[in-house]
Amino acid sequence: MSDRSVFFVSDGTGITAETMGNSILAQFAIKPRHVRRPFIDTVDKAHQVVREINATGQREGKRPIVFTTLANDDVLAILMGCEAKVFDVIKTFVEPLEEEFNMKSNHRVGRFSDPSVDQEYNDRIDAINFALEHDDGQSSRSLDLADVVLVGVSRCGKTPTSLYLAMQHGIKAANVPLIPEDFDRGFLPSMLKPYKKKCFGLTIDPDRLSHIRNERRPGSKYAALENCRHEVAQAEAMMRREGIAWLSSTHKSIEEIATTILRDIRPDRLVY
Amino acid sequence: MSDRSVFFVSDGTGITAETMGNSILAQFAIKPRHVRRPFIDTVDKAHQVVREINATGQREGKRPIVFTTLANDDVLAILMGCEAKVFDVIKTFVEPLEEEFNMKSNHRVGRFSDPSVDQEYNDRIDAINFALEHDDGQSSRSLDLADVVLVGVSRCGKTPTSLYLAMQHGIKAANVPLIPEDFDRGFLPSMLKPYKKKCFGLTIDPDRLSHIRNERRPGSKYAALENCRHEVAQAEAMMRREGIAWLSSTHKSIEEIATTILRDIRPDRLVY
Repeated sequence: MSDRSVFFVSDGTGITAETMGNSILAQFAIKPRHVRRPFIDTVDKAHQVVREINATGQREGKRPIVFTTLANDDVLAILMGCEAKVFDVIKTFVEPLEEEFNMKSNHRVGRFSDPSVDQEYNDRIDAINFALEHDDGQSSRSLDLADVVLVGVSRCGKTPTSLYLAMQHGIKAANVPLIPEDFDRGFLPSMLKPYKKKCFGLTIDPDRLSHIRNERRPGSKYAALENCRHEVAQAEAMMRREGIAWLSSTHKSIEEIATTILRDIRPDRLVY
Repeated sequence: MSDRSVFFVSDGTGITAETMGNSILAQFAIKPRHVRRPFIDTVDKAHQVVREINATGQREGKRPIVFTTLANDDVLAILMGCEAKVFDVIKTFVEPLEEEFNMKSNHRVGRFSDPSVDQEYNDRIDAINFALEHDDGQSSRSLDLADVVLVGVSRCGKTPTSLYLAMQHGIKAANVPLIPEDFDRGFLPSMLKPYKKKCFGLTIDPDRLSHIRNERRPGSKYAALENCRHEVAQAEAMMRREGIAWLSSTHKSIEEIATTILRDIRPDRLVY
């Protein structure tokens, strides 16, 4: 069923409206058409969106769904006049909170503070740069500054997880591959020794790993299922021996892996 | 005012509850203590969270705020018994949608589908790898596959923007720096010539750029305000001459820059 449209209307990026709307819509076995309309910050733009929503509903024969985070009352009033089922995040959640806090809100939702003066924002950028500089074992320099060092075989998900931890949580994550030479020697890469307590392992189902590696280097020994089985078994044995906590990335999204890592190694970052 | 706690309680990662809660709380001039409690998927875990919430409220003398996306009715029922102001995303948004769609929801919120079989998820991972391989002009190979090529002076925000476009939107974004040699020659880097239509420029206030570069290479010519002014002026002149659309990253977050780029160069990706 793709015969219905969902609009995300915001005076900012629309990320909040969209994230929320998508997580709600995921509850339903439908595939609506998604339309994002960011930066709707004037009465004129609101009229334009309303015309688009109404025309869409008429074309599809079903009224559209709208998720909105518009904070400006004049702009919102125009949107509310559209022929759609509108979910207004502000009215639903902000007004009860005004009562709870006994305080007026400043009618600003989903806006980011000015990054040029925001320490938390700058920490995130620093963390992204750190992840890039310490991707794939590139550098052991300032590894003491890492919040976590991800280890695991090539292509098990270390890099996207590092970047996600940096971008979303401002966590400095380095990542170091476990490679056949390490298994032959039977020791962790030497750069990891001083930082074993910060290490967190990722592992992956060998079939899935073989599939991923085959997309990169088709038919190679690197991608062969037999080799993937060997590397994964060796990596898991090494992590077990060294007492490094690990999880399998096979059926987990980056977001879920990152949340688990945060909870396990930096529970203090879950309270912030 | 940090004398009140906000809990984000979820049976998944809690990302949905937290994103929504934070955008709502940003409306208020308060700094509550944030506590994320992910993976609450059993009655036992729910009881544990309720005890924690109640103890927190007693200690702080004000009832906590709770944002939740719990989908399991038994687990939710226990949470609802806590002494707090609870915002239940499911009840608020999902039940009205059940009526609108005339369809029961599957009571699953904020969960991700299994990434090992999800094409959209794999596209995101491919896009992250593409961004890394094409970071900082490293490679002109397969630049024809790029959705967008970001250009601008060193440290104007190209790399985090590329990674964000990849991670959040599955957009393949390359980035190529504009460097003093390009300004001396007066031409765009030659690798960009075939892809000028895909180029999008970032610029930045020279004072801010000098500040950022000074953190990296203190006291260098690279970081000197005079040099930053020169590079930014040259880069903007070049982009104007070549007809490349650009925006200033100075007071914009990565999210805002990415949303603007998407809207301007790939409006089709805003309907997906």
